Amino acid sequence: MKSNSLKKPVNSLPFSWYFENKFFQKEIDKIFNTEWIYVCHINSINNNNYRTLSINNKNIVVIKNKSQDISVFYNTCSHRGSQIFDQTEGKIKAPVIICPYHQWSYNINDGSLINTTSINLDKFDKTKYGLEKVNFHIWKGLIFINIKSKKKFNHQSIFQYYDKTIEQVDLENYAVGHVWKKNVQCNWKIYWENFSECLHCPNIHPELSDLVPLFKRRLTDIKDHPEWNILKLNNLDPQYQGGLKEGSQTWSYDGSAQGHTIESIQKEMESRGQIYISTWPSMFLGIYGDHIRIVRLIPKGPEEVELTAEWLFEKKTLNDDKYNKNNVVDFAILVMNQDASIAEINQKGLYNLKDNQGVLMPEEYIIRDFQKYIKSKIQ
Amino acid sequence: MKSNSLKKPVNSLPFSWYFENKFFQKEIDKIFNTEWIYVCHINSINNNNYRTLSINNKNIVVIKNKSQDISVFYNTCSHRGSQIFDQTEGKIKAPVIICPYHQWSYNINDGSLINTTSINLDKFDKTKYGLEKVNFHIWKGLIFINIKSKKKFNHQSIFQYYDKTIEQVDLENYAVGHVWKKNVQCNWKIYWENFSECLHCPNIHPELSDLVPLFKRRLTDIKDHPEWNILKLNNLDPQYQGGLKEGSQTWSYDGSAQGHTIESIQKEMESRGQIYISTWPSMFLGIYGDHIRIVRLIPKGPEEVELTAEWLFEKKTLNDDKYNKNNVVDFAILVMNQDASIAEINQKGLYNLKDNQGVLMPEEYIIRDFQKYIKSKIQ
Amino acid sequence: MKSNSLKKPVNSLPFSWYFENKFFQKEIDKIFNTEWIYVCHINSINNNNYRTLSINNKNIVVIKNKSQDISVFYNTCSHRGSQIFDQTEGKIKAPVIICPYHQWSYNINDGSLINTTSINLDKFDKTKYGLEKVNFHIWKGLIFINIKSKKKFNHQSIFQYYDKTIEQVDLENYAVGHVWKKNVQCNWKIYWENFSECLHCPNIHPELSDLVPLFKRRLTDIKDHPEWNILKLNNLDPQYQGGLKEGSQTWSYDGSAQGHTIESIQKEMESRGQIYISTWPSMFLGIYGDHIRIVRLIPKGPEEVELTAEWLFEKKTLNDDKYNKNNVVDFAILVMNQDASIAEINQKGLYNLKDNQGVLMPEEYIIRDFQKYIKSKIQ
Repeated sequence: MKSNSLKKPVNSLPFSWYFENKFFQKEIDKIFNTEWIYVCHINSINNNNYRTLSINNKNIVVIKNKSQDISVFYNTCSHRGSQIFDQTEGKIKAPVIICPYHQWSYNINDGSLINTTSINLDKFDKTKYGLEKVNFHIWKGLIFINIKSKKKFNHQSIFQYYDKTIEQVDLENYAVGHVWKKNVQCNWKIYWENFSECLHCPNIHPELSDLVPLFKRRLTDIKDHPEWNILKLNNLDPQYQGGLKEGSQTWSYDGSAQGHTIESIQKEMESRGQIYISTWPSMFLGIYGDHIRIVRLIPKGPEEVELTAEWLFEKKTLNDDKYNKNNVVDFAILVMNQDASIAEINQKGLYNLKDNQGVLMPEEYIIRDFQKYIKSKIQ
Repeated sequence: MKSNSLKKPVNSLPFSWYFENKFFQKEIDKIFNTEWIYVCHINSINNNNYRTLSINNKNIVVIKNKSQDISVFYNTCSHRGSQIFDQTEGKIKAPVIICPYHQWSYNINDGSLINTTSINLDKFDKTKYGLEKVNFHIWKGLIFINIKSKKKFNHQSIFQYYDKTIEQVDLENYAVGHVWKKNVQCNWKIYWENFSECLHCPNIHPELSDLVPLFKRRLTDIKDHPEWNILKLNNLDPQYQGGLKEGSQTWSYDGSAQGHTIESIQKEMESRGQIYISTWPSMFLGIYGDHIRIVRLIPKGPEEVELTAEWLFEKKTLNDDKYNKNNVVDFAILVMNQDASIAEINQKGLYNLKDNQGVLMPEEYIIRDFQKYIKSKIQ
Repeated sequence: MKSNSLKKPVNSLPFSWYFENKFFQKEIDKIFNTEWIYVCHINSINNNNYRTLSINNKNIVVIKNKSQDISVFYNTCSHRGSQIFDQTEGKIKAPVIICPYHQWSYNINDGSLINTTSINLDKFDKTKYGLEKVNFHIWKGLIFINIKSKKKFNHQSIFQYYDKTIEQVDLENYAVGHVWKKNVQCNWKIYWENFSECLHCPNIHPELSDLVPLFKRRLTDIKDHPEWNILKLNNLDPQYQGGLKEGSQTWSYDGSAQGHTIESIQKEMESRGQIYISTWPSMFLGIYGDHIRIVRLIPKGPEEVELTAEWLFEKKTLNDDKYNKNNVVDFAILVMNQDASIAEINQKGLYNLKDNQGVLMPEEYIIRDFQKYIKSKIQ
């Protein structure tokens, strides 16, 4: 096995790409409007409820009907353009979708127009005025939408970083234990890049670096050190073997999984500690000893990104009154807030060297891949 | 008599015309700067007082001197451009206009420069430095200004919807009983369009639809139903005859005019309930059993419109201590707030279908006229 | 001696130059990025402390090391662009500069890169990744920076208004007694122009016009009246002779210097009252009987300017417990707040006559010079 480390430092993206509006508009157009964007886990929406999602002024509504079927539309009436659902989340009040302005009604499953409130409709072709549908796909209980493209979802290609361990997890049956939101004042790429390296770990995440000893070495993979083979042979310490510190089973304040490790992947998690899969631009998913955490990134402008984290547990875990989910939830919030703070500080320095670019160090190979992806989409 | 209903549904304006700044700037230039814009009733300004009005960064001052004469200027000193009057409304403190910065003084009636505070003025031609005048006209006590055009005011042409009943009302002698302001987060055209149809009435305005039974049928004119003639013959109910519900005389919470119906138009109002005249883009005037209400619309940006409502009463009505004007004032505020809420919801849905347009239904013929007007001015 | 008064009124700059963003960007590029910009007095920064300064998104850090040496850099790490110093002012925590993100370390004096936290660095040329230096110069204890230009500082040319009296003041040894900041909602040129004339003095600054009787005549120089010679001969009053009102020694609430007049310039100050030197676009310095006051202007946008005033005193003055510095500090704050208010009112009037320009009166010859300077830089 070889390290993925870069052979030599390479230029990073130009700093202006992280704050100029004209560049941001390109990203919206060529990335967020054409890639599969993560919405939420199906169990995040109650039956007979809706959830809205805004991506750069496009407002999408995801509906889960009484039979748990999902449908996705633009949240706009075909008559004079009124918004139909006005909350981030709420109940569907009738067996059809009704616009609050003039009470046009639409089929909840396919969005077709059922009735208007006008008279004299013999020259009005109702079939032309259904709600505009949005392409969507559900993979292992995760809802994805595609705003502009009609292409098919293919989980083999949408995850740039993938790990088969996820196939051992029956994610569609997991329960949502907690949801957390935070708007961070940085370009969305800054947050991704921060997620993609651990050079910052010891100083920014002291608690996490204690739990994952490898992170104290500023590495995400033991192979990122040129002498990793020798180091591994001679050291039993997880600093060189990977995995969590001795006695720990999951990412939590005390490292304990409280007797709820996920059985199907227990062995794998014991040796690796954490596993990530990610799909640019909108989501990464972390597998931990006793839970899954999904983080969604939606840009709110060139210099603001909205984070939404969902914690997913096996139902039996949440049903156990003695299981304290705050042990994992609060630990991850601590880490994400640390990342948010340093990401905002990174953003503030970019304007000075507007016409320049930074440099990617050998350990920053995932950032290198991410930047290649950005360039391939934009140029 | 025939209905004005549209024979078939027609396309509405493109949604982008309701939020794009470049379109808004065209509207300012070609509509608000060249059409007659309503300021206020002459009795809204006390003698020896001024009132300022802002339209897209142009700030205009309307002055009423001690002899009740009106003059209108740009609110800017000719020296180095200082604003002269800094409040929305206030007293004129001297018999001349004095700039607060360097005390240049101007004639209150024609704006000519009287004095500067400099010495050595033999080479300074005072006649070049008067205040810049604004074209204005007073019609039945209503002050209109025209920012760029020098054309003459013609009440025959400025009202797109006109009704001769107003000629029976000596509006110039009316007193202003109340003024109400509200900024609504929608394009100014959205508010006009909402004003121009009653398809929304039963759900958005339940109290008003109870007072005006025709509105329960989502109509503004009984003739808008194809069988109106038959319906009218067979039904004495105001749902089919027009007018207010039995026992009501005016738009008020309890329908009562408290013994103060306007005599000269009493018959007309009894059968019709309410009469509107309107002049795009800035004003509509409603005639009710015992009062007049004028609503002014001034855009504050592509997605914000400022509403100003004035309630005008015969002096003897306001002088009657037993007359409770809140009966009409609060009722209209209820209705206008309902319109404001739904107009903001309409605005929020437009971005999704940016490149599309909505559809106008048969009953929306006034909106059709309004949109033809917009197109004729812009294109 | 002759007056500098203009022979005849001349056109002022077009009003749009005071609020249009495209013009502002030109000024940033051709004036603020290329002229010497005042930062602060060396004694405003403690030893082993830093101070940051933002000019239109460029963020600069000025460092004073333990040996009192000054160095100036862009406040951005060369790795991935993180901001290094996150406060306006603070302590340097180590003998080197350390980026908070990935702990890259830089030499505090020349900004050269000392260490990264990556491994495998044989192909990484450290000398390419030092902090970007900013050109600076210290003149009489005053720190100036030049963002883009490498030109040499020359005090003979950077002050448009200069007075040799300053050479009698050992400013580098003065202590900073107070610092005051205020953001004013006007274009930066408006504040300069207001500073450059006294036509506004009697009405805007009644207290100051009482202290400096010449200002009551709306003049900054006795020679600005065509008959100044005759007036001076016949009147002993400081209205015609210049200087402060009888019994006053400095700009303070009661006119008293509390026994601390600056000896080396006492005679000069007794006859003149106040002396100004100024360097466009960023600073003017006032000399008064017992102190120096420096005002820095940094634009924060086309319609906002940040004022920073520093009061400098001889050390012995501040060391005297009986000396009440509020006597001078509060008086100047009163005057600067009066200027800020009228400057904001001036700004508000400019939009109306966007395509026009104002007029400069005979007394406004310094403004004339200032506007010539602006034109020479922009065009």
